[in-house]
Amino acid sequence: MASPRLLLLLAAVLLLLSFISLNSRSSLRSLNPPPILSRSPSHPLDPLSFDEISAIRSILASYRPFAAPNPFPAIHSVSLDEPPKSVVLRWRPGDHLPARRATVTAYSPPGHTHVLSIDIASARVLHHSTPSGFPRLTTDDMNRAIIAALADTSFLRSLDSRGLSPSDVVCGPLAPGWYGPEEENHRLVKVQCFATALNFYLRPIEGLTALVDVDAARVIRISDSGPGIPISPGEDTDYRYSTQRNKPSAFSNPINPVSFEQPAGPSFDVNGHVISWAGWEFHLKPDARAGSVVSLARMRDPETGEWRSVMYKGFASELFVPYMDTSEGWYFKTYLDSGEYGFGISSMPLVRLNDCPRGAYYMDAVFAGTDGRPFVRPDLLCVFEKYEGDVVWRHAETLLTEPNIREARPKVTLVVRTAASVGNYDYIIDWEFQTDGLIRVKVSLSGMLLVKGTTYQNLSQVPEGEDLHGTLLTDNLIGVVHDHFLSFYLDMDIDGPDNSFAKLHMIKQETSPGESPRKSYMKVIRSIAKTEKDAQVKLSLYDPSEFHIINPSRISGVGNPSGYKLVPAATAASLLDLDDPPQRRGAFTNNQIWVTPYNQSEEWAGGFFVYQGRGDDNLATWSDRDRAIENKDIVLWYTLGFHHIPCQEDYPIMPVVSSSFDLKPVNFFRRNPILRAVPYTENDLPVSSARTSV
Amino acid sequence: MASPRLLLLLAAVLLLLSFISLNSRSSLRSLNPPPILSRSPSHPLDPLSFDEISAIRSILASYRPFAAPNPFPAIHSVSLDEPPKSVVLRWRPGDHLPARRATVTAYSPPGHTHVLSIDIASARVLHHSTPSGFPRLTTDDMNRAIIAALADTSFLRSLDSRGLSPSDVVCGPLAPGWYGPEEENHRLVKVQCFATALNFYLRPIEGLTALVDVDAARVIRISDSGPGIPISPGEDTDYRYSTQRNKPSAFSNPINPVSFEQPAGPSFDVNGHVISWAGWEFHLKPDARAGSVVSLARMRDPETGEWRSVMYKGFASELFVPYMDTSEGWYFKTYLDSGEYGFGISSMPLVRLNDCPRGAYYMDAVFAGTDGRPFVRPDLLCVFEKYEGDVVWRHAETLLTEPNIREARPKVTLVVRTAASVGNYDYIIDWEFQTDGLIRVKVSLSGMLLVKGTTYQNLSQVPEGEDLHGTLLTDNLIGVVHDHFLSFYLDMDIDGPDNSFAKLHMIKQETSPGESPRKSYMKVIRSIAKTEKDAQVKLSLYDPSEFHIINPSRISGVGNPSGYKLVPAATAASLLDLDDPPQRRGAFTNNQIWVTPYNQSEEWAGGFFVYQGRGDDNLATWSDRDRAIENKDIVLWYTLGFHHIPCQEDYPIMPVVSSSFDLKPVNFFRRNPILRAVPYTENDLPVSSARTSV
Repeated sequence: MASPRLLLLLAAVLLLLSFISLNSRSSLRSLNPPPILSRSPSHPLDPLSFDEISAIRSILASYRPFAAPNPFPAIHSVSLDEPPKSVVLRWRPGDHLPARRATVTAYSPPGHTHVLSIDIASARVLHHSTPSGFPRLTTDDMNRAIIAALADTSFLRSLDSRGLSPSDVVCGPLAPGWYGPEEENHRLVKVQCFATALNFYLRPIEGLTALVDVDAARVIRISDSGPGIPISPGEDTDYRYSTQRNKPSAFSNPINPVSFEQPAGPSFDVNGHVISWAGWEFHLKPDARAGSVVSLARMRDPETGEWRSVMYKGFASELFVPYMDTSEGWYFKTYLDSGEYGFGISSMPLVRLNDCPRGAYYMDAVFAGTDGRPFVRPDLLCVFEKYEGDVVWRHAETLLTEPNIREARPKVTLVVRTAASVGNYDYIIDWEFQTDGLIRVKVSLSGMLLVKGTTYQNLSQVPEGEDLHGTLLTDNLIGVVHDHFLSFYLDMDIDGPDNSFAKLHMIKQETSPGESPRKSYMKVIRSIAKTEKDAQVKLSLYDPSEFHIINPSRISGVGNPSGYKLVPAATAASLLDLDDPPQRRGAFTNNQIWVTPYNQSEEWAGGFFVYQGRGDDNLATWSDRDRAIENKDIVLWYTLGFHHIPCQEDYPIMPVVSSSFDLKPVNFFRRNPILRAVPYTENDLPVSSARTSV
Repeated sequence: MASPRLLLLLAAVLLLLSFISLNSRSSLRSLNPPPILSRSPSHPLDPLSFDEISAIRSILASYRPFAAPNPFPAIHSVSLDEPPKSVVLRWRPGDHLPARRATVTAYSPPGHTHVLSIDIASARVLHHSTPSGFPRLTTDDMNRAIIAALADTSFLRSLDSRGLSPSDVVCGPLAPGWYGPEEENHRLVKVQCFATALNFYLRPIEGLTALVDVDAARVIRISDSGPGIPISPGEDTDYRYSTQRNKPSAFSNPINPVSFEQPAGPSFDVNGHVISWAGWEFHLKPDARAGSVVSLARMRDPETGEWRSVMYKGFASELFVPYMDTSEGWYFKTYLDSGEYGFGISSMPLVRLNDCPRGAYYMDAVFAGTDGRPFVRPDLLCVFEKYEGDVVWRHAETLLTEPNIREARPKVTLVVRTAASVGNYDYIIDWEFQTDGLIRVKVSLSGMLLVKGTTYQNLSQVPEGEDLHGTLLTDNLIGVVHDHFLSFYLDMDIDGPDNSFAKLHMIKQETSPGESPRKSYMKVIRSIAKTEKDAQVKLSLYDPSEFHIINPSRISGVGNPSGYKLVPAATAASLLDLDDPPQRRGAFTNNQIWVTPYNQSEEWAGGFFVYQGRGDDNLATWSDRDRAIENKDIVLWYTLGFHHIPCQEDYPIMPVVSSSFDLKPVNFFRRNPILRAVPYTENDLPVSSARTSV
């Protein structure tokens, strides 16, 4: 049985406990009183305020099905039910706010999931449904499962056989995925543990898994395939500077600090949740599930002054992280992190000066705890201007010898950043806005590998033909091969909601005999997707296309439709079988690009309820309805991916790996919108002067 | 006939005249006396000094075949003949320099190409061969061709029919490519002209081409398919700030300057051509053909202090830029810019504070002019530390509730930059070194599009089915579709010269019945390339591999070979027919990756002599010999590409588009080499403080 001391060590696991956020806020940042506590919404898309969440808690507490003597359900999420798009688009500053409504997901064991729509002003529950499907676990659920595992005699015996007691371990509540009917109808968690250490992730108790029924707080099955596998000592894996600074070093070559200098200050404005900068304006908010949401992104045309819509809403909709080991302790590790754990709720406060540069603006979040009460997560988002010494355009003239023309313009961008820590892994998501209208979405990965214990200490011990499913990183530890896929919801509204998806297909065209000394050229064939299946795209290096979202009603002076193109960068595709259970759940990775008609209920690429979901209501199933998408309000979806074959350098903490994609104006502006960009002179940058050539 | 005024306007064209660099240096930068003029080589790989080039000029002048009364040949290039790799690798600072030798390419019309090897100290010509093949044109060659065109009655008549006289035009000497035997044995240029304007590129005199025999200074053929095509007025295309600052603007939202601040100064050292920073050391030099060359890149192992070799030599070896219009005035535009024009010689001085940030170090170049005399090109390279507000690693802990762990480390890198202006286009090439051992090579494109005149002012005028071969950008101008491919020579020496090329092939592996609830997983199959054909790689999203250069003799404690992996990012492949003449010349783009055994004579992916070359001695032909490459000194070649379908925003000057690839340590270090990286504190960054949350 777990001792009181054990309970302290046990852990909220994969999510910071909500009471931690409330009770230990002083350790994160001193705010007295935190201004966010008293902030009221001023825009239709503003997230629920502290007071609004409190009001919702009261409404639920007096809502008859949840009021005494009925048990109050566990609250899994409380979020703004955004007003209809048409209402938001009509709204102007100074107008009354549209009715503030919230969507609440709650759960009453055993088996009752609730989705409620609540009108705050009238204190009414407008709708209440009890769908099938499970919301993500609460911290209480996680703790209950872990306690159940650590109270199980068989589990304790397995620990004991390794010389461990419950006070020597830290356990994680792992989402079980879905692998058939026998796992349905009960909320399940797989509990696996690590030997205690600051960086316990690198000390797995290999092969020991407890399958726990969360509602019953009961262990269903213990599997232990790893009694002979040693637990790594985790030597020198504490990555904290307070530890590392005292280590002796054979050689070090520290570099001096470099940061941004802005003699005239930053150029962006923050008005509530509305950010404006360099012709851009957008609404920005934290979100418990998505992390951050960018809405109503529009740009002011430098030639006309007109505000022009670019994107109604964009966010990281879902992740899929399948591990490539089919053994009992690993096969189920195929996470849909956003739906299963929550990207925003997993985002800890950003580390000032390090996660974001000096001069960054930080935005706090208000989320609801399991009891429905609000709590503040400080510094969840940051916004900053970025300069990396690059140019936005340049030309030096060589053909005319007079005058001597050399013109270059420095590139400055605006970055919005969040960093989610979903257990071992960290995902940094940047939305970067450029002065030329380009939006870059960058995903960076860091944190700790999920490692597998092994008896091997050297590859020479591995029998010929045995597949390690990963890389031997150090004695007795394998970094298991895995993928990361992140799917982005991109409701593009290029000059208004009604858009089309155009493919510019590039093909090899052979010339006719005698037509040209050339045998071939690359020809561009343009087509408009009529229905969703026309817009299911697998990228191919040798069968390339450009992908444009265009407004067929907004035609330039020379006849080109206004548009933005999606520009993929390095990416990876899932190689799993389409019928493999995890791939069915992660079916939004079956294509890199999808386009769906706008539907307010279709926001989460893996489905609204992902936990133990079968994958029967997700982006792939929506798209397969093959609805019309030409000249309609459409949503673009892009999934970027990483194959990760671990290497020694990823141990004990991974250097960042990044990838990105761009949304780039294409015939949106009449011409280069930054022709008049201003170059730097010595007067602009007074502090130090350039080093001279020698 | 060309008037004296005309000659002033005529232009060096695509290359800055060497006399301009000598005579108008004062307009570029005041250096009195320029220190580079008196610098002697201090490293075996140092480029030829001003005095050495002068000495070579003297040696050539007294070399009997070139001495009076024989005519002195035109000098096309003078560059260091690098000592054998074994000699360079043995050399240590303080040792005598190995013999300084130079390779000279020269040309005596008609038809005599010379390649000479010269020993400077002994003033001897060691070898003198007269191979077939033409070196790139000199400025004199270009001027001669243009003057010939503008003296041709038929050409003048065509101009006159458009209301133009020679003083109204600027002409370019375009490389003709190679399209069959009839174009061989004579040095040819295609001359096309533009109506005079600061940004004349956007005012093509469409369809008028003079084919000129350079040596005979004689027009062979005039073709004119464009008399009815108007010349664009080029309205508001002067991109200079001095012009644009005075234009009225409907709306502008300027941003305040942002630059880097380094309170404790930069952290890199420059010792002659040797740069050291953060454990990295490499030799850096300008090169007339390649632009910049990075040599002897090595890194100090943070655990042992050992210097460890990474790359012997890396540079941009060749470009291929085919345009996708097969008409008479366009089909031949399939440039191999590096070999045809010279990337270094086309690089103008970088614009301080704008092309490179404040605090950059600038390196000058010494090149040889057509007369063999040295001249200085200032500020050809810059080196700077870069910070973009990103992290090298981070983790926030959610599983343990105590202590509150949030650790992030700022990312600072070192960048080496050149910017070549090959006529209309600008290519920025960055070598970026990271503290974790990663090298990123980034290519950025800017400058002006090559545009085609047209009678159309609106797409509605284009008959159904007519292919514009591009995008109508503005009245009467089409931005023609084209590709850019850049091939990099990467002589990786991972812990020494003898390396192997390993492919880690990722495949879908189906599980056996009953093996696992999973139907499939991604399996990694590792193989070593035995011969060159094993290492000819076309990338594929759905048939992916990792590509490692490993040292099979340097095995880590757990059995992994030391290595670096090539990590492609966004790229494009040539879709041209393999037998199309331009594709034969650009055959290094037939694969994205190649590996060849080291051979000092195989450095230029398109061949040593590219001008009018047939493509019969290039990377593809070398690789097809299928030599052994396992556990040998090998060279990795990577080609990155861009498809460019122009858009209105590219006019009148293109916002930068970039792509990159990485060379990333993989089991090279025992573990993360930057675990001990130091976070920033307020004390490190004293000037201003962070904005607070509101």
